[in-house]
Amino acid sequence: MRVPFEQLKAEFKRVLIGLNFPDEKAGLCAQVFAENSRDGVYTHGLNRFPTFVSYIKEGVIDANAVPTKVNSFGALEQWDGNLGPGMLNAGFCMDRAIALAKEYGIGCVAIKNTNHWMRGGTYGWQAAEAGYISISFTNALAIVVPWGGTTATLANNPMVIAVPRKEGHIVLDMAISQYSYGKVLQYKSYNEQLPVPGGYDSDGNITHDPVAIAASKRLLPIGFWKGSGLTMMIDLLVTVLSQGRSVKQISERNTESGASQVFIAIKPQDTQQTHGLIEEILNYTKSSPPVNPDKPVVYPGENTLKTRNKNLNEGVLVDEKIWDEVKRL
Amino acid sequence: MRVPFEQLKAEFKRVLIGLNFPDEKAGLCAQVFAENSRDGVYTHGLNRFPTFVSYIKEGVIDANAVPTKVNSFGALEQWDGNLGPGMLNAGFCMDRAIALAKEYGIGCVAIKNTNHWMRGGTYGWQAAEAGYISISFTNALAIVVPWGGTTATLANNPMVIAVPRKEGHIVLDMAISQYSYGKVLQYKSYNEQLPVPGGYDSDGNITHDPVAIAASKRLLPIGFWKGSGLTMMIDLLVTVLSQGRSVKQISERNTESGASQVFIAIKPQDTQQTHGLIEEILNYTKSSPPVNPDKPVVYPGENTLKTRNKNLNEGVLVDEKIWDEVKRL
Repeated sequence: MRVPFEQLKAEFKRVLIGLNFPDEKAGLCAQVFAENSRDGVYTHGLNRFPTFVSYIKEGVIDANAVPTKVNSFGALEQWDGNLGPGMLNAGFCMDRAIALAKEYGIGCVAIKNTNHWMRGGTYGWQAAEAGYISISFTNALAIVVPWGGTTATLANNPMVIAVPRKEGHIVLDMAISQYSYGKVLQYKSYNEQLPVPGGYDSDGNITHDPVAIAASKRLLPIGFWKGSGLTMMIDLLVTVLSQGRSVKQISERNTESGASQVFIAIKPQDTQQTHGLIEEILNYTKSSPPVNPDKPVVYPGENTLKTRNKNLNEGVLVDEKIWDEVKRL
Repeated sequence: MRVPFEQLKAEFKRVLIGLNFPDEKAGLCAQVFAENSRDGVYTHGLNRFPTFVSYIKEGVIDANAVPTKVNSFGALEQWDGNLGPGMLNAGFCMDRAIALAKEYGIGCVAIKNTNHWMRGGTYGWQAAEAGYISISFTNALAIVVPWGGTTATLANNPMVIAVPRKEGHIVLDMAISQYSYGKVLQYKSYNEQLPVPGGYDSDGNITHDPVAIAASKRLLPIGFWKGSGLTMMIDLLVTVLSQGRSVKQISERNTESGASQVFIAIKPQDTQQTHGLIEEILNYTKSSPPVNPDKPVVYPGENTLKTRNKNLNEGVLVDEKIWDEVKRL
C-alpha cells in the first residue's frame, strides 16, 4: 500500500501533538520519520514509529527535553541530550557541527544522554544539503561478538560518512554488524539463509542460518576481526568525547536509551575542481563491469535517491497493518 | 634471527645518509622503519626498506622535499607533500593536526602528492603519545573489487583510529580489504587456504583460495557491500579535502606514489573519568569468554605492545636474507 508523503507526515504529527509535543518539535519528528520511510529505510520510518510512541508514553524519551551545553573548546563541543527525542538531538548536534565548521573549517559535537537517532543517514543528508562533508558515530546495545569471544560485548555502532554532490549526495550509512538483528529476523521469516555469514549459533560456530542467529542473538561484525576492533573504537570515541554511557552501560538498561554520539562536519572547497574529483571517483568505481549486466555498481546513496523519487511520485510504501495501527494512535 | 633495535635503526640511517638524506631526516626515517619492525609490522619495517631505497634511487621519492602549505582555514589545513618521504610527510601532518587540536579542540590536515606512509599505526601511536585521539586515512592503488563489480576499481585505503591510554594506547590500524595482497601471497607460499573469504577468482567467484586471488589480483573488502562503500568514501574524503590524486589517478602511475591523506586529531579531557570510561569499555569487551581459553579477547594495540617489549628485550626479529641485503646497501 502507498500513502502520500504529506499524509504520512501529517499523521505522525497528529499523534505527536496528542502526546503533548510542542508544534514545531512534532513537525520535525514527523518529518524525520516520514523521510526515513520515503527514502526506503522503512525499519526506521513508519515501522519504528509505534515504538517511539511507547517510549514517549513510558517516559524513556522526554518530549520536552532540549540539549544543554556541557563544555565548549573552540571547534569541539560537548552537549547533554537530557534524554530528549534522539532525532531532534542528533539534528541539533549536526547543525552545531556545521556552524563550527563554517567558523573553523571543521567542527565536532559530542552528545551524551541522548536517544536512538533512528536512521543515521538523516544527519549525513542534512550536512550534505548544507554543503558539508560529515562523519557521525553512535553507540548502541551490545549484540556483536568480539573476535575470539563467545558472547556479545560489542554493539553494531553505526557510522555515517557523507559527501555533498549536486547531482545526488553520497551518503554511506552502515552499522558495523554484517546484518542488523532486524534483517536476520526478516530472513528467518522468509525461511532463507543469509547470503554471507551473519552471526554465531549457540555453539559458537559462524553461520549463515538466521534461525540459529536469532536464537543466540550473537551478530558477526563486518570483516570478522577488523569490524570487532572498529566497533570498539567507535564506542571509545563517542563515550570519551561525550563523557557519556558506553555500550556496557546502555546494555544494562531495560530499554535502548541514553546513547553517546559524535558529529563531525568539514567544509570542502565548493569548486569545479572538487566537483571533477568527485565525478572521477564515482565514474571510476562504477566502471567495474557488473556481475549482473542489469545491475551496475552503485555508490552509497544512489539507490536512496531512486527510492525517494518513486515514493514521492507514487506515494510512500507502507506496511498496511502498521499504518492502520498508527492511524488509531 | 634477532638484531638489537638500535643496531637496526643505525643501519637504516647509514644507508639513508649514503643516499644524501640530511642527518635529521635520515634519523627520523630510520626510526620509523625500525619501530615498525620492533612493533611486529615486519612488512612495513625492514622488509619494505629495500623498496623505499629503490624508490629514492629512481626519484619516485624526493629525499629533500618538505611539505608546503596550500591552504589554511582555522582548524583545517591543506598541504602539498611534494613527493617527499611518506613517513616524514605523515608525521609532519599529524604534528600539525595535534597543534591545531591544541588550539581549537580538533584539527584536520589534508595532504596531497605524498608517498606511502608505510604503517598507518605509526601516526596513531604518535598522536596517542601526545595525548590526542586521532583518525587518519590514506588512499592507495586499486586492488579491491566494488560490490557487484568484476574488476578492481577501489583500493584498500587504510584507516587508523587511536585513543591514548597510559597503560597502553588503543590503536586500530586496518586496511579496508579483508586481507592485504601480501598476506594472500603469504598464505599461498604456505600452501594454506585463507581462514575467511579474501577475494575473487578469475571467474568472479568469492574464494578462500590464495592461488586464485593472487592470479586475479581482486581483493574482497571487509563486510562485502559495506567495505565497498566505506573504502570509496575514504577515497572521497582524502581526495576532496587534499584536492589530490584519487585511487584512479594513483593506479594510472607505474609506481604507488602521489597519495592523498587526511589526519584528524581531537583533544580528549585528560581526567580520571575519561580513564574510567576507557577501562570500562576494554574490560567489558574483554569479558566475553574466549573460544580458546588460552587466547582472551584483545583490544587493538594490545598485542603490539607485547611484541614491542619482546623485540626490545630480545632483539628485533629480522628476515636474515633481507637484513644481509640491507647491510650491503
